[in-house]
Amino acid sequence: MTMSDYSKKQLQEEKVFKDPVHRYVHVRDQVIWDLVKTKEFQRLRRIKQLGTLYLAFHSAEHSRFNHSLGVYEIVRRMIENFEEYPEWDSNDRLLALSAALLHDLGHGPFSHTFEDIFHTDHEEYTKKIILEDTEVNEVLSRVSPEFPREVAEVINKTHPNKLVTSMISSQIDADRMDYLQRDSFYTGVSYGNFDMERILRVMRPSKDEVLIKESGMHAVEDYLMSRYQMYWQVYFHPVSRGGEVMLNLVMQRAKALYKSGYNFKQQPTYFIPFFNEDVTVHDYLRLDEMVVNFYLQEWVREEDEILSDLAGRFVNRDLFKYLPFDGSIITITELNELYKKAGIDPDYYVFSDSYSDLPYDYDRPGQNRNRRPIHLLRPNGEIKEISSQSAIINSITGIHRLGSRLYYPKEKILAIKDLSVKSEIINLLNELD
Amino acid sequence: MTMSDYSKKQLQEEKVFKDPVHRYVHVRDQVIWDLVKTKEFQRLRRIKQLGTLYLAFHSAEHSRFNHSLGVYEIVRRMIENFEEYPEWDSNDRLLALSAALLHDLGHGPFSHTFEDIFHTDHEEYTKKIILEDTEVNEVLSRVSPEFPREVAEVINKTHPNKLVTSMISSQIDADRMDYLQRDSFYTGVSYGNFDMERILRVMRPSKDEVLIKESGMHAVEDYLMSRYQMYWQVYFHPVSRGGEVMLNLVMQRAKALYKSGYNFKQQPTYFIPFFNEDVTVHDYLRLDEMVVNFYLQEWVREEDEILSDLAGRFVNRDLFKYLPFDGSIITITELNELYKKAGIDPDYYVFSDSYSDLPYDYDRPGQNRNRRPIHLLRPNGEIKEISSQSAIINSITGIHRLGSRLYYPKEKILAIKDLSVKSEIINLLNELD
Amino acid sequence: MTMSDYSKKQLQEEKVFKDPVHRYVHVRDQVIWDLVKTKEFQRLRRIKQLGTLYLAFHSAEHSRFNHSLGVYEIVRRMIENFEEYPEWDSNDRLLALSAALLHDLGHGPFSHTFEDIFHTDHEEYTKKIILEDTEVNEVLSRVSPEFPREVAEVINKTHPNKLVTSMISSQIDADRMDYLQRDSFYTGVSYGNFDMERILRVMRPSKDEVLIKESGMHAVEDYLMSRYQMYWQVYFHPVSRGGEVMLNLVMQRAKALYKSGYNFKQQPTYFIPFFNEDVTVHDYLRLDEMVVNFYLQEWVREEDEILSDLAGRFVNRDLFKYLPFDGSIITITELNELYKKAGIDPDYYVFSDSYSDLPYDYDRPGQNRNRRPIHLLRPNGEIKEISSQSAIINSITGIHRLGSRLYYPKEKILAIKDLSVKSEIINLLNELD
Amino acid sequence: MTMSDYSKKQLQEEKVFKDPVHRYVHVRDQVIWDLVKTKEFQRLRRIKQLGTLYLAFHSAEHSRFNHSLGVYEIVRRMIENFEEYPEWDSNDRLLALSAALLHDLGHGPFSHTFEDIFHTDHEEYTKKIILEDTEVNEVLSRVSPEFPREVAEVINKTHPNKLVTSMISSQIDADRMDYLQRDSFYTGVSYGNFDMERILRVMRPSKDEVLIKESGMHAVEDYLMSRYQMYWQVYFHPVSRGGEVMLNLVMQRAKALYKSGYNFKQQPTYFIPFFNEDVTVHDYLRLDEMVVNFYLQEWVREEDEILSDLAGRFVNRDLFKYLPFDGSIITITELNELYKKAGIDPDYYVFSDSYSDLPYDYDRPGQNRNRRPIHLLRPNGEIKEISSQSAIINSITGIHRLGSRLYYPKEKILAIKDLSVKSEIINLLNELD
Repeated sequence: MTMSDYSKKQLQEEKVFKDPVHRYVHVRDQVIWDLVKTKEFQRLRRIKQLGTLYLAFHSAEHSRFNHSLGVYEIVRRMIENFEEYPEWDSNDRLLALSAALLHDLGHGPFSHTFEDIFHTDHEEYTKKIILEDTEVNEVLSRVSPEFPREVAEVINKTHPNKLVTSMISSQIDADRMDYLQRDSFYTGVSYGNFDMERILRVMRPSKDEVLIKESGMHAVEDYLMSRYQMYWQVYFHPVSRGGEVMLNLVMQRAKALYKSGYNFKQQPTYFIPFFNEDVTVHDYLRLDEMVVNFYLQEWVREEDEILSDLAGRFVNRDLFKYLPFDGSIITITELNELYKKAGIDPDYYVFSDSYSDLPYDYDRPGQNRNRRPIHLLRPNGEIKEISSQSAIINSITGIHRLGSRLYYPKEKILAIKDLSVKSEIINLLNELD
Repeated sequence: MTMSDYSKKQLQEEKVFKDPVHRYVHVRDQVIWDLVKTKEFQRLRRIKQLGTLYLAFHSAEHSRFNHSLGVYEIVRRMIENFEEYPEWDSNDRLLALSAALLHDLGHGPFSHTFEDIFHTDHEEYTKKIILEDTEVNEVLSRVSPEFPREVAEVINKTHPNKLVTSMISSQIDADRMDYLQRDSFYTGVSYGNFDMERILRVMRPSKDEVLIKESGMHAVEDYLMSRYQMYWQVYFHPVSRGGEVMLNLVMQRAKALYKSGYNFKQQPTYFIPFFNEDVTVHDYLRLDEMVVNFYLQEWVREEDEILSDLAGRFVNRDLFKYLPFDGSIITITELNELYKKAGIDPDYYVFSDSYSDLPYDYDRPGQNRNRRPIHLLRPNGEIKEISSQSAIINSITGIHRLGSRLYYPKEKILAIKDLSVKSEIINLLNELD
Repeated sequence: MTMSDYSKKQLQEEKVFKDPVHRYVHVRDQVIWDLVKTKEFQRLRRIKQLGTLYLAFHSAEHSRFNHSLGVYEIVRRMIENFEEYPEWDSNDRLLALSAALLHDLGHGPFSHTFEDIFHTDHEEYTKKIILEDTEVNEVLSRVSPEFPREVAEVINKTHPNKLVTSMISSQIDADRMDYLQRDSFYTGVSYGNFDMERILRVMRPSKDEVLIKESGMHAVEDYLMSRYQMYWQVYFHPVSRGGEVMLNLVMQRAKALYKSGYNFKQQPTYFIPFFNEDVTVHDYLRLDEMVVNFYLQEWVREEDEILSDLAGRFVNRDLFKYLPFDGSIITITELNELYKKAGIDPDYYVFSDSYSDLPYDYDRPGQNRNRRPIHLLRPNGEIKEISSQSAIINSITGIHRLGSRLYYPKEKILAIKDLSVKSEIINLLNELD
Repeated sequence: MTMSDYSKKQLQEEKVFKDPVHRYVHVRDQVIWDLVKTKEFQRLRRIKQLGTLYLAFHSAEHSRFNHSLGVYEIVRRMIENFEEYPEWDSNDRLLALSAALLHDLGHGPFSHTFEDIFHTDHEEYTKKIILEDTEVNEVLSRVSPEFPREVAEVINKTHPNKLVTSMISSQIDADRMDYLQRDSFYTGVSYGNFDMERILRVMRPSKDEVLIKESGMHAVEDYLMSRYQMYWQVYFHPVSRGGEVMLNLVMQRAKALYKSGYNFKQQPTYFIPFFNEDVTVHDYLRLDEMVVNFYLQEWVREEDEILSDLAGRFVNRDLFKYLPFDGSIITITELNELYKKAGIDPDYYVFSDSYSDLPYDYDRPGQNRNRRPIHLLRPNGEIKEISSQSAIINSITGIHRLGSRLYYPKEKILAIKDLSVKSEIINLLNELD
């Protein structure tokens, strides 16, 4: 790849972003500076890093813009350390930095829920935003005509340079290291703390991946435990999941109304491409969380009672209650029938939510689930998969942990007039508890 | 005032909000819990604490909801300490807590700018939201019929109970103690740190105000210095003020277009009461920052070039450049004329912004500017105004510090075709630097 | 037990100790204040909390005085929370606080090593200091004649009140919660962080022990992982253990010299009772780390070359090197013989050190190793041993982790003149690596 | 100066010290590594950074070893930034690093008090330790024969290279920046926090000094305020000063006894050169705080009642009480006479202690008190003394703040048998309060 002069252009003076997690984010490359200024990157300020989690942890209101700068900074520091090793090719610096900065570019509002309902895929859109007619593409193309494609490939894990790819996406990458610390900082919990300084010091570049010096094994144990704890204590919080449930239901209702020809007071212009599942990059880019919240406010005033009720619940954080639930179809079927008798639409007033976490795993011979192991580098040059060396890590390797909950509107159940139906529903729910 | 049983109702178990600044916010009163759940209080999640400051400090994305809980928590802790002193009347507890929680209820989006353009007043709206037909009013009225009025009076500093008032609004109150620490935490700067634990320990209730034990004087010095530093290093940051300038201009343009009968593609429904300066509480409550951002996005696509340009600049953080400026009318007049020659509208493309800070002052005999001194309590019971005891504080007492800047669109100036006009403008600007 | 008025006496105003880990340590009871002022408690300032660990982590120079105040503060906070439960008897407050404060009173200098060499036992001496003629005993006796014995029994885990005992000594007690956080703070590592605030909130008093509400299980997982990490990353650090090895050898040498009638330049007055294993409480109390260090300096100037060399190595941190070692007797025997050929005394110049950790375990029926389980309290009142509920904890339950190392003076080996002996020793050591 | 190869020798791999203030202290130079290992540098582990301050802030038990590494690390980071400026000569790197590391090498135990009584001077001894027959001298001499002298000159501020000198000793140097942060960390107070990262970013090397870019002025204001607060809130704490008073008196008594031919049970061998004011470098180096504490314990058991009492008071922290005092000679004379009547020796039982602080000042033309100004560097290259630009700094410039206290043994006064003398003394003291 021939790189333009632009690719080497340095800012006259280093610029910094003050960052509460990494102290400062340092920028020296003109390309990085220009990428930050693009409207597609600035848009990430309007997408929260943790979607509905602020409903459970009120202080977690930070954006994907915030996190993206953090990932960039970690990769910048990795490279600073790698530069003394022959395994590191300094020509890959800008590729790694750009991919780090842009790795979340394709996230939309409340990604988890929206992808579920509208069958969009943020990885797909990251690629499109990088490759199609955008300011980001314009900047990257000035580096070299192939550069946008290269960056997209690193982010989508199809690039032949596995070392660079592993810096951004692996089981111990800059993305995870940033979000664990950042989400921990913003929520105020201590679980996400681990010794990143130490991990950076023990990372070594190799042909195919980032290796961890064996002496850093305990720091990696601590990092994996942090990750496990953050999933169970923070990310799977029932109130945050309850916010997603609400969004899911309101979006389904709006889509169903649209499909049925319902006459909205405020035309859902921004949503129509999503309802029709025919979304251009530009349709995609303009739907941020500001817009979604605007429509939710509008929908509160719609005639349709279900849409209005669900939208109001999200806007005013009047969420469904929840119970532990094993996902039994029998229960759901029974509930649906009882709901119908009570005049409550089961499509919108009961929701079974499940979630799972796999703190660490790796592909055994013959497997190909894109789970590349964390490898330890011994002083003698030998390489060992980490769970073979750490009993703690071994104890969690390959073990999925699952949970699920049933969400329902308690006060609506309590208001059911048919007392026998009401008590049947209540009994059914009490059995879950 | 007779208080209902409801006023004494305690939650079955204490509830907490995890908070990164105060560790936990503790709630035991049913009334407080119910206030937090109202839609008017939840709305504060959609208003950033620091308006446009996130454009300068990307990590400062926290809401007024977040800050309001913090102020409540500090007042709760003050009361915990006050309870052993006879000067404290425990009947005032709920009044102080409610006023602390609700003190910012009337803030709208980007308050500073909006109040300027639309002549709204957040203190006025706080009062209206508390006294008119809202969920907050409904909760407060259940305490006693007079309770809403009492809470509003404490917030608006007209309540006869000066001790409670001073806990929430004075030169060393829970509001300031929370925002200095919180804004410092979120921006990542260290300036806002001071020893609040110590200050809480040296606060003593008296008939008219919160006194500070003399032994805590140095901690107050440190607090006042923190405040001074936060104003100059953070709150007056030129990029944040530049964001406000942008908003100011775009709102003025939208209002002017509306007044002139311009035909908007998307009717600015939410703004019309503001343009007409005839705003009900319910008009006011629905205009949050989500809605403002939605309209700004819409306006980017409007026909009017000025509106579209200014809105796009805010949305994509493509702000004006700035220079130090003494506010000279001569310069402005000259610039206006040159702009007109160059075909640039001076009403929307140059802005003189000034700001000032008064870290500490107090009313001398005969003055009545509502600047109540910070009083030290000596071991012998004597009371002393703090600047008479601290040379450091004396050095900043009554001293306004001022700054001002001129904002202009650099690249628009550079693109002026009439070279002599262009160079005259550039010369004029160079003189400022 | 009848308690004197003294037992209820409160200080006129709360006193605090500024503490970097718990912010403040709060004292209200006259008894606690008087205990802190005793010379036996002040003596703990002259004993480092972590012995030789400062040789590995230079910043860990804190004393047992420092830690003891921290344990007291945690128990004080536990009690603050317990007071609303009927299971808590407020008469036990002073007992719990006193035992917390004094739990380490019997520690001597470099306890681990000294107990090994001189067969003292810090638990035994704690009891003696509390029960014999000391200032601490005088203060405690003023509470009631039985009070000293009660406090000693809580510390030695023989007191019938198992709830109070478990607050200070159990697998999740105030002692461990303080030292993990404090040692983490002082060393600068992040491993010791866990959410103590949360654990305090989920602790519930019961008849026999402190229970953990089930909802706090993840916080306990995190605490146990912290403990595990601190052992392996900090407490077992080879350089710190190397310092202990040095001390061990120098003390053995001094004792052997004394026993053999060696004529010390400076009579080892303070040590003689220890050499003779006939130590009174007053002998014990005067041997602090200041005194030990003084003698080590003196010994550098003694005629005996071994004593002088070993003492100098400790004083100037010129420690032995180390290798991983399986403890094989064959290797040791071979080394001893080679050493003798080389003219090096194997009793003082090679040391096999092993260490082990058991992060969590509990006695199964029929076992009685004083390993009481951590019990979770479910919402329905059921009690569950924690490893039956947490897969993570289950994975470490009952699993001893072991390590051992061989320490030797590298430069002394390299200086051996008989080249064949030298190379045999080097070969033997190389096999270990 | 010709530098040996040794001066350029790098460690095979960077070594780090984990540090809670700077995260890590990084060492790459063999010379620095070797200096740390010398016995003279290791000795600094046995000298507390803050002398008797641990008597007031129990958690401040850190050593000068700890601080010295911190100063080294700050200078290392300064140099990292300076390397891109032509004003920085990279040949000065090792000189600056060595001087930073060794700047406190000549501190003895409780320096402040000991220098007062025994007329030693730590700067003088730093020079001697560097230039005479020591391990430090041996290491430095291997760099070049002149290197020890150069290092000593930088530390003693007589070196012609004013830039390097100012990095270590000026009104904003690495020494102060480290101790403010470190002492703040260990005491647990927040006063010592300032934004060192920002200050490092705005420091620019010039021919004669380190300049501060004008944009960093507020960060320097904050630093100077931190310094001011630390002096008044921490360093001048009455209990810490009270500890020094005790030491002062006990040392005076021991010296007087020695001079009068008193027969000590334990010969004060280590002190004799100090009593005689004839101290070699080796006498000096062996008197560390371990030794002083040993003797204090011994002296408790001496026959002389005054020596025994005073020593016991220090060892067991049974300090004198204190009152504010204007230093009036009349009061002192009166007290002395009353003491004599009461049979209390006024030389050892009353002490007038005064202290003062000058947060910032600079030599005006004609003055030469070695107060070099802090200079701001404006964008146009102009240089301005900082107090001319900052009103806050101006308000404290040149202003000495003074305080003084009278220390006396309260319970000894209360035990005076002659009731009229007793009441006269009490009245005299009451007038002070």
